[in-house]
Formats: sequence, structure tokens, C-alpha cells
Amino acid sequence: MKKSFVALAVMAAAGAAMAQSSVQVYGIVDAWVGSERLRVDNGNGLEGERQTKVDSGGISGSRFGFKGSEDLGSGLKANFLLEQGFAVDDGSTEAGQAFTRQAYVGFSGGFGEVKLGKVWTAYDDISGATNSAFDSKFSATSNVFVSNGYTANPKNGVYYATPVVSGFSGAFSYALGEDKSAAKSASKIYAAHVKYENGPVFAGLAYQREDSGIAGDPAVKFIRLNGSYDLGAAKLLASYGRVASGDTKANEYHIGVDVPLGGNLTLSGGYAYSKVKDAGVTEGKGSGWGVALGYNLSKRTMAYAGVNNTKWKDGVGAVVGKYDLYAVGVKHTF
Amino acid sequence: MKKSFVALAVMAAAGAAMAQSSVQVYGIVDAWVGSERLRVDNGNGLEGERQTKVDSGGISGSRFGFKGSEDLGSGLKANFLLEQGFAVDDGSTEAGQAFTRQAYVGFSGGFGEVKLGKVWTAYDDISGATNSAFDSKFSATSNVFVSNGYTANPKNGVYYATPVVSGFSGAFSYALGEDKSAAKSASKIYAAHVKYENGPVFAGLAYQREDSGIAGDPAVKFIRLNGSYDLGAAKLLASYGRVASGDTKANEYHIGVDVPLGGNLTLSGGYAYSKVKDAGVTEGKGSGWGVALGYNLSKRTMAYAGVNNTKWKDGVGAVVGKYDLYAVGVKHTF
Amino acid sequence: MKKSFVALAVMAAAGAAMAQSSVQVYGIVDAWVGSERLRVDNGNGLEGERQTKVDSGGISGSRFGFKGSEDLGSGLKANFLLEQGFAVDDGSTEAGQAFTRQAYVGFSGGFGEVKLGKVWTAYDDISGATNSAFDSKFSATSNVFVSNGYTANPKNGVYYATPVVSGFSGAFSYALGEDKSAAKSASKIYAAHVKYENGPVFAGLAYQREDSGIAGDPAVKFIRLNGSYDLGAAKLLASYGRVASGDTKANEYHIGVDVPLGGNLTLSGGYAYSKVKDAGVTEGKGSGWGVALGYNLSKRTMAYAGVNNTKWKDGVGAVVGKYDLYAVGVKHTF
Repeated sequence: MKKSFVALAVMAAAGAAMAQSSVQVYGIVDAWVGSERLRVDNGNGLEGERQTKVDSGGISGSRFGFKGSEDLGSGLKANFLLEQGFAVDDGSTEAGQAFTRQAYVGFSGGFGEVKLGKVWTAYDDISGATNSAFDSKFSATSNVFVSNGYTANPKNGVYYATPVVSGFSGAFSYALGEDKSAAKSASKIYAAHVKYENGPVFAGLAYQREDSGIAGDPAVKFIRLNGSYDLGAAKLLASYGRVASGDTKANEYHIGVDVPLGGNLTLSGGYAYSKVKDAGVTEGKGSGWGVALGYNLSKRTMAYAGVNNTKWKDGVGAVVGKYDLYAVGVKHTF
Repeated sequence: MKKSFVALAVMAAAGAAMAQSSVQVYGIVDAWVGSERLRVDNGNGLEGERQTKVDSGGISGSRFGFKGSEDLGSGLKANFLLEQGFAVDDGSTEAGQAFTRQAYVGFSGGFGEVKLGKVWTAYDDISGATNSAFDSKFSATSNVFVSNGYTANPKNGVYYATPVVSGFSGAFSYALGEDKSAAKSASKIYAAHVKYENGPVFAGLAYQREDSGIAGDPAVKFIRLNGSYDLGAAKLLASYGRVASGDTKANEYHIGVDVPLGGNLTLSGGYAYSKVKDAGVTEGKGSGWGVALGYNLSKRTMAYAGVNNTKWKDGVGAVVGKYDLYAVGVKHTF
Repeated sequence: MKKSFVALAVMAAAGAAMAQSSVQVYGIVDAWVGSERLRVDNGNGLEGERQTKVDSGGISGSRFGFKGSEDLGSGLKANFLLEQGFAVDDGSTEAGQAFTRQAYVGFSGGFGEVKLGKVWTAYDDISGATNSAFDSKFSATSNVFVSNGYTANPKNGVYYATPVVSGFSGAFSYALGEDKSAAKSASKIYAAHVKYENGPVFAGLAYQREDSGIAGDPAVKFIRLNGSYDLGAAKLLASYGRVASGDTKANEYHIGVDVPLGGNLTLSGGYAYSKVKDAGVTEGKGSGWGVALGYNLSKRTMAYAGVNNTKWKDGVGAVVGKYDLYAVGVKHTF
């Protein structure tokens, strides 16, 4: 009697749970309090007020989503993911967007993975991989790297990732503009990366090209080479970025380090530098540093504090902008 | 000891599952790649470029939602459903809409079902029931039937469906404009259907009337008669549609067939035709055909390929528009 | 064999359920049908049509959300809540808002609770606590109390609530405008309340101050004193509200009663009055009454009927506006 009741309860519970198992609700809520100042020279010297703020996404952009994976047998899976970004400080998101971050359906199996929809590009996969300060708002590159200005998740995308073989893997993405007219070709964005990840070593090379489809309009080409090495006592981080569009070219560098301090504490910081030239003549320079301290209250919840300091100069070395940020916050994953 | 642990675990699992049982998260993600061309004659001959596309909703519109049902005893249930449509290729939806498709609360029981909110009209229940090519973007009627131009889910709606008796059922819906002013009456949309569904036979007749509330403004009246018969080796599909608004009248026809090819493969196709007259004089004609092939990878996941080809002529028979579509895609239900 | 299968099933079920336990999907769907008329005198006497309506939120605003709580040990918890308001009659919400109602992350423990994000102010916690007619659209205060015109859930907020000690508790909230410029200080909203809740007695005093940050601009200050006493056969409700901004001051009063009628039936009604003066001279008066009857079909589902009747006069006692509402509806919680 009792046994059959237990078995029944198990079935009921398993049934109810399975009714839910086709979709998982997940997300990140990340909020911080702090002080931020952006000053820009519009001809009257550096202008801009310091703001005391409650804001969203100190470490990671706040988001929620629905995702699921269905086993189709023979190692084949159908997968989907729908992810909306929002600001936890005011509840806002982009008007007219159900899912600002990703929205795709696809398959995975021995052949790798295919996605169809609004997907992070293959360049984006590498872009933040070796960023210091937890690849966050505090990262040195955040306000310095021009090569961060790529289109991260264009619409109308197809994406393919290879399986991992001996630590090596690759991915390719293509996004269609669907805007062909009598006057122009369709715009398009394509990207690719190769990656090596094995033990303490990470190395990734990514390329993205954005074409407007208008005759004579130069494509914008992004290159990123990222590497890291984990010494145990510290993880060394390095990045090289390059953007080119016609005669305009940016070359940029970043070095950083993650330092586990014991307990659940990690310190990470770095320095970034960028120089933009037009037809060989320097147009501007950016440089910045950032440091963040993270304390893991649990696997899902991290308290953090961070600083970012950035400076921009024009071609002759005059300071035309300054930015600084001091913040403490919490990132909660569900 | 072990038993009590098992029992405890069961309770915990059942409890956790039940905490979720008041709401179910569900949806469809449907994406396709293909080629689409719409050409229209605006006085310079047929113009319009072929676009290579990644798009949403080849078979069914992509959507997610929350729904639930509470047993109130004595056969009475409280029900709700909240459903948002979106485009998986770019994550977009209608700005300012939390739920573009449906949003309602209501009751069901021996008396039938009542819904209150933004609900599909009683006409909509019948409209796509015998559409060929899986009632999709590929269906012959998609770009031909003027009677598809009804308001599908008006705001401020009440809806009642009878119980099914010997295969017969009916439904009525009414939507309030809430726009009464000193100058006009409130606009309104009402619809009704009767349906017979038994074994191999389906027959449905639906009517919808849309009144602007402005004196002298003719109402727009939609009629749809749909029928299908399942021979086993094939399912025959037929539709008649009629739209009338003052002197303007459209009469339209559709025939199609679903053919199970064995395995998990189904082929479906059809042909549709529409003629619009104004005060007895032909104003325009539309005709089109569509074929789709569906392969069920599982109960929840279908791979598909489809074609649609449509042509519009003016009153004297000159071609004024052409549309074609070739696509392959995947529809995943969660 | 059987036992291990059961145990396995339990684990599977518990695992699946736990995978969901970090987030709960919840909400309210509240729809009503009724008749509403707002008439206003714009110089030609009272004008405005009676509208028959299907509408949202008769008792409580329709909403859905995601929330969760993570035990961090030692009595400390990480909490989040993301809540979107919508209208069930048309599926609409505010464009560009993922969460119109609340969005926060925070901690709770022996010290009380801290929230960071878009949070109801400490004033809002008290504001509706002793409202008659279930604190709804039917409440006498709804269209009368000027002190209902506070900013309920400003962006960029921090919120702290004390623990409850012998029935006493308090809360404080602060919201940052983040709009400091060379010409003005940052705007801000701060609020506080103290509350006593013990057995049949409830008493709450709340204050909210809204500063534009513009020099010379008077702050808007809200005060609310709410009390109730539960006699068993009836619960007596009373409110005093005050708004002041420079020379303009409103003083307002509300009395009401909740009457349990036995079964699952409760009747509640009240009367509210407000007078606005500018530099001591009466500018306008509002008064209204409202009654609602609620029938609990279950813990989660309530059927209701309600009436509201409101009148506004100008400084010399001439009627300048009238409002009435008759409605029946259903509120379903999931």
C-alpha cells in the first residue's frame, strides 16, 4: 500500500517535473551602486557631471530567458534559446524586442552545432574570452577597444560550430541583411574563429567583416587575437585587436591578470591601449585600466567591487575625454 | 531509514514540482532559410528584388507563453493563457505589447468555456482548419484569400464555446471597441461558428462582422465554409470564403490534400483562387499554389521544406503582382 | 531492482524539480466586464460617454513575473524579483519596459532586507494597506486621494526594511535621479514608514518626498497615516493623507469597513474626501464611495462585483467632474 503510494508519488512528481523539463527559465540579475563620471571636451574643456548611480550589469548584463534541449536519438539534439536583456535599475529594455540578446533554434550532435536566428557572431565568442576584471564594465578594454564596436548579435543569422578535437575548435557565422534593392546588394556580416583550449592554455583568433552592400562603401573588418595562460597562482591575459575600414585603422592591446586570493575571493585587473590612424596619420588614442574584486557568496551569487579609469586623446595628444567609475554590486544567477 | 529518505525525497520533489504546477511555460520556435521575392507593378512593370532570408514562422508563428488551469471542484476550472508572438530571426515583437497573440482568464466546465480578454475570434477557430501545407506561410490561401484579412484577436473580447455534442460544437465571440463618442457609436466585432468533427469528417462554418460604429460606414462581413475528409491514404481539404463590405465583394475557393508518405513524412499542397468585384464589376483576381513537406523528427520537432507561388491580376487580367517563396526550416515546440 | 528504479526516479524527479527551484514563475490575471463613465466639464457642462468595457485589473493589476531566493547559509538569503504589468484585455504594456512593476536583486537576513533596483517605495508599502473595497479600482480613494499621486516605483532605487520586533517594523527607500547637470542637482525621491501590526491592530505612518533638483522648485511631500482594527464581525479601516508642494496643500480622509459575510463571501466599502487649497484658498474638492463584493472560488481565484462613484467640485462648489463604474470580474493568481 505504502510502496504503491510512494511509486505513484514518484510518477506524479516525475510527470510534473517532466512537463516542465522541455523548457528552463534562467537568468542573471546584476545591480550596482557607485559613482560614474564621463567628461568630454566639446570645445569648452572637459565637461560632464559626476553621477551617483544605481545601475544594472556591473559584471554581466541582466537578462532572463527560456531554453531547452530535446534528445532526438542517435546523439542528435534539437535546441532553442530565447534571451531578453534588461536593466534591473529601471526595468527597461529595447522597445519592440522580445529578445534583445539571442533567439535561435537549431541542432547539435557529432557534427557540431547549428543555430538559426539572432545569434552571437563567431567573433563575439572570442572577443571577451581573455578580458580582465571578469569581462565586465570595469574591464580596461571596455571604453578603449574600438574592436569592441562590432555587431554582436545581428539579425537573420546562421551559425555553425565544429566539435572540439584535441582542444581545437572553430565556428563560422553569417548574417543576412535582407535589404537588397535595385540600387544596392544585400548587406551582410560574416565572422569566423579558431580556438585552442587545453589545460592552462587558451588561444583564440577571430575575424568579422561587415558589408553595407553599397557599391564603393568599404567593409569594416575586425580582427581579435586573444590568449591566456593559467599559472595557478595567477592567470595571465592578453589581447590584440585591429579594426580597418578603408584608410582608417585601429591597433589595440590589452594585458591583464586574474589572481585567486584564496577563500572565494578573486582579484582581476588590466590595462588597455588603442591608437586610430587615418591614412597613416594618428587621429586619436585611448587608454585605460580597470580592477575588480569578486567574492563568491555561492556558485550563483557574487558580490563585487570595481574601478575603471579611461582617457582619450586626439591626434596631437590633447586630452579630449575622461571616464571613471567606482562601484560595488551583486550578480545573482538563476 | 532509507525508505523514509526516499519518501522525503519524493515529497520534496513532488512539492517542488507542484509549486510549479500552477503555471506552464510553453512555446514554439520556428525558423527557416530560403529565398523570397515579391514583385509589384507600381506603373513601371513588376519591381522587387529576390531576398535570401533567415526568417521566422515558416509553419507556425514563433511564440512563448504562460498558461494554467485550476480545478475548482464540481467539474469547474479556472483557466488563463498569456501568449507573446515574436520573430526568432531578430527577436522582435510589437512594441508596447506584452502578449500579442492571446491574453485571457476564464472558466470551463460542463457548460462549455468562457474567456475574457484578447482572444482569437470564433471565426479564427475555423479559418485555418482545412488549410493545405499545414496552415502555414506556404499555404495556397496565404497571399490569396481576402477573407484572411479579418481581425484575428481583437482587444476587449468575450468568448464562449459550447461543449461538443455528438461531434457538433459552436462558439461565439464579441469584442468591444470602447470608443463611443458624441459623434459615433462604439465599434465592435462579433463572430460565430458551428463545427462538426467526427471520425474522418470535419465541417465548419464561420461568420465575422466588423462594425466601425460610424453612421453610414458599411460593416465588413466575412464568411468561411471549410470541410475536410480523411480517406486514410490522403485527406481532402476544401474552403470557400466570402467577404462583403458595401458594394465590394470577394468570393474565393481553395482545394488541397494532405498525403502521409509513411515514416514520419507528410506532403501537403493546394490551390487557391479569389475574385473581387465592386458593384458587380471585377476589380482583381488572385491565385496561388503551395506545397510543403514535413518530417517529424519527434513529436515536438519537425523539419520542413515548402514552396508558395502567387499571382495577382487587375480587373482586365493584367498581372499586377507576383510572389514566390522557397524555404527549408525547423519548427520546435516546447 | 524495483527499489533502485524508484530511487532513481525520485532522484531524476528531484533533480528536474530542483533545476527549476531557483526561479518561480508567478502572476495575476484579473479581467472584468462592466460599464464606466467619466464626465468632465471643459466649459460646456459635463461631457463624456458611458463605455461598456472588457478591462484589466478590477481588483489587482494583471502581472507576471519571475522570482527566487537562494539560501547562502547563516540565515542570509539572496533574493530577486522581476515583475511585468500588463492589460489582459489587450495584452498591452509600457513600450520599452521588460518589467514595469518591480525589478530588484538583494539580500535578507537577521538585519532585515535590502533591495537594489526598481522597487516600490517605503511610502507605497503603507499607502494601500487600509484601503476599502480590497484596495482596488472600486476603492473610494481611487479617484479622490491626491496623495495617491506619488511615484510608486521610481527607477534607480535602494530599499531597506527592518526586521519585525514585537509587531513594529520600518522601511526606508531612496531613488536617484542620476540627472545632475551643470544647471541643476540630481533629482531624488526618498520615503520612509513605520508600521505596527499585531493581532487585530494595524497602524502605519508613511512619508515620501520628491525633489526635482532644480533650485527654487518646491519639493512634493506626501504623508499617509493608515489604521485598521479587526473586530471579527467587521474590520474598520481609516486613512488620513496629506500632500504639500509650496503653497498648494491637500488634506484627505477615508473610512471603510470589511465585512465577512460567511462562506467565502466578503463585502467591503468606504467613503473618501479630499480638499485642495492654494495659499489657504480652496481650489477643489473630491469625494467618492466604493463597494465591492468578493467571492473566493479557491485560494487562488476570486469572483467579484464592484461599484465606484466619484465627484469633483471646484473652489466655489460647482461640480466639474463625475465618474462611475459598475463591474463584475475574476482575479486568478498563479
